[in-house]
Order: sequence, then structure tokens, then C-alpha cells
Amino acid sequence: MSQKVEFFFDVVSPYSYVAAIQVARSDVLKDVEWRPFFLGGVFKASGNQAPISVPAKGRYMAQDLKRLFAYYDTAYTFPAVFPTNSLMAMRALAAAEPSQVKALALALFSAYWSEGKNIGDAAVLADILPADLLAQASDEAVKEKLKAATDEAVARGAFGAPSIFVGDDLYFGEDRVFLVEHALKG
Amino acid sequence: MSQKVEFFFDVVSPYSYVAAIQVARSDVLKDVEWRPFFLGGVFKASGNQAPISVPAKGRYMAQDLKRLFAYYDTAYTFPAVFPTNSLMAMRALAAAEPSQVKALALALFSAYWSEGKNIGDAAVLADILPADLLAQASDEAVKEKLKAATDEAVARGAFGAPSIFVGDDLYFGEDRVFLVEHALKG
Repeated sequence: MSQKVEFFFDVVSPYSYVAAIQVARSDVLKDVEWRPFFLGGVFKASGNQAPISVPAKGRYMAQDLKRLFAYYDTAYTFPAVFPTNSLMAMRALAAAEPSQVKALALALFSAYWSEGKNIGDAAVLADILPADLLAQASDEAVKEKLKAATDEAVARGAFGAPSIFVGDDLYFGEDRVFLVEHALKG
Repeated sequence: MSQKVEFFFDVVSPYSYVAAIQVARSDVLKDVEWRPFFLGGVFKASGNQAPISVPAKGRYMAQDLKRLFAYYDTAYTFPAVFPTNSLMAMRALAAAEPSQVKALALALFSAYWSEGKNIGDAAVLADILPADLLAQASDEAVKEKLKAATDEAVARGAFGAPSIFVGDDLYFGEDRVFLVEHALKG
């Protein structure tokens, strides 16, 4: 992998999870940098809307996710609270060492989308994340770090999640992971 | 293929073309019914918007399409007139015999998305479609037929193009053709 590849995700986004599963399983993508950002901020800055804003899309999404998680052999439970506020969870990831982010993100994705637990709840997060990270989520510097990552992604063209950059080239959506792999194998 | 599979498309939609390429090449999908509908009507009825309504999405789409057409080894030219009015072309397809639709649709897709010709222009259409079909595009019964197909797709849950139905189950987007094939291989 000669070019830098960055994977921007938010654990509130089920399609980010579907991408994370593919990225985590891919030999070509094992050096990807996992980069937390805040999807709410991306929507606000880009003028984009969550898919569930259109009723027919929302109804379809439930089926689509069921099929995708089945295809990738991953347990799927629609969370009791959706969308939840992922800000604390994403700030904690922003506080983590780069080498820790992948494992912690997969644990959060699994808790929210495979088990349906409310990761917007601090008590739930305390069972998943190290206490020091959770404490750091309230630091101003950490809040700024997540905001800066979000602004950076938007400035580079992102309008939703997941967003993958190969160098400066944006690939949007879990359904484009194959094109990222194709570009890297190129 | 024990279940009925229907492929709803509009030739104005590049992602419909990317789906059409996959459907046309798939052994599993050779008995698919190619069903013309009018994307403008689908957007209007479902409250959905074309992707280019969000500026960052529009900029991304140009790159995304370039990559997809390259991946599928198909020539790609962004049309001089986009979006064009595909109503006459789609009405002509609605007037065609079911067995003719696939070949005519592929000819229209290729003219618009591979060669960049304006298929909203009657003179351009006259070079692609049989004269009798083009004449029938003005018949009230044909207009109604296209409108009925559009309304039917929306009533069954469609909110964009391409939309594929396996029995009553909707699959949206060229990136879900693999799931249609997966479902049929069961």
C-alpha cells in the first residue's frame, strides 16, 4: 500500500460498520488509518441529510441492512435508540492512540449494531471503553480534535459516512470498498 | 430463477446504466424483466432528490462514475446536456415489446453515457430507435403506460433508480446487484 489510506467513520452509522467489517477483513487494507469523525457535523457542514429523512428510504434501509449484515455473517440488531448521540463515543475514540482505534471502534460498532445497546449512554460506554479514554472525552482539546477531523474530511469533499480517502481521492460508502481495493491493487 | 425479477430504470440515470451493464452480463439475471419508468416522477412522488442536489455529492459523483465505468470496461462521457429530459425516450421504451426493451435500453444508455449524445432531442432519438416506437411515444395510452409503471414502482417502495424487485423485495442501486444475485442463488 504505497498511498496513504484513511477510513473516516462514525459508530452511529450502520453503513460505516459494514465498511469497517470489510476493511478489517481485507489483506489489502490492513494499514488503513482508522479516523473517527462526527457524522452530525458532516451533514450540517455539507448540507446533506441522513437517508431516513425520506420515508421510503428509511423503510428500505431496514431491509438493506438486514441483507448486508447477513451477507457479511455479522449479527445485526436495530438499536432501541436510533439515531443515538455518538458524540461522547467518538470523542473517546479521538482521544485514543491511533493503534487502539480499530479495536475500540469495532467493539463500539458491535455493541450498537450487533447487540443494540445505547452507546449514547455513559454507563454503556463504561463497559466498552477504558476509563481514561472516557474521562478524556470531556477535555476541550479532545473535543477540538474530533471537530478538526470532521472539518478536515468535509474540506476534502466528504458529505457522509463512511468516507475513505486514497491519497486525496474520496470513496464514499461501504459499497465502494471494492473500488478502494481495486485502486490499491491497480 | 424461480422468482420474478424486475429491473426498473431510466436512461437519464448513470447508475441505472451501471446496473444495466451488470444485469446484462449476469447469467443468473438473464430472465430479468427490463421495466422502463420515469425517474422524475419517482423523485416527485417519493420526496427524494437527485444526488446532485448536494454540491459535494455532485462533485464526488463525477469521480465515482468515472471509476465505475472503468471498472466495468465501458466507455464513459459526461453528457453535454445533463440532466436531459428522458421522457420521450422512456415513453418509446414503454411502447416497445418486452423482448425488445433490453437491447433498445442498452442502445440509449450507450448513446447518452458512453457517447454523450443528447437523448432528449428527437433527432438524436431517430438515429437510435425504430420510427414506429418514436411515433407511438406521443400516444396517450403509451404516456399512461409509463406513468402507471412509475406509480407502480413507487407504490411498491421505490424512491430512485435503478430499482430491482425480486418478487416484492426491493433492491436499490447498482451496488446491490450482487445481493440480487446472492438472493437468487440462495
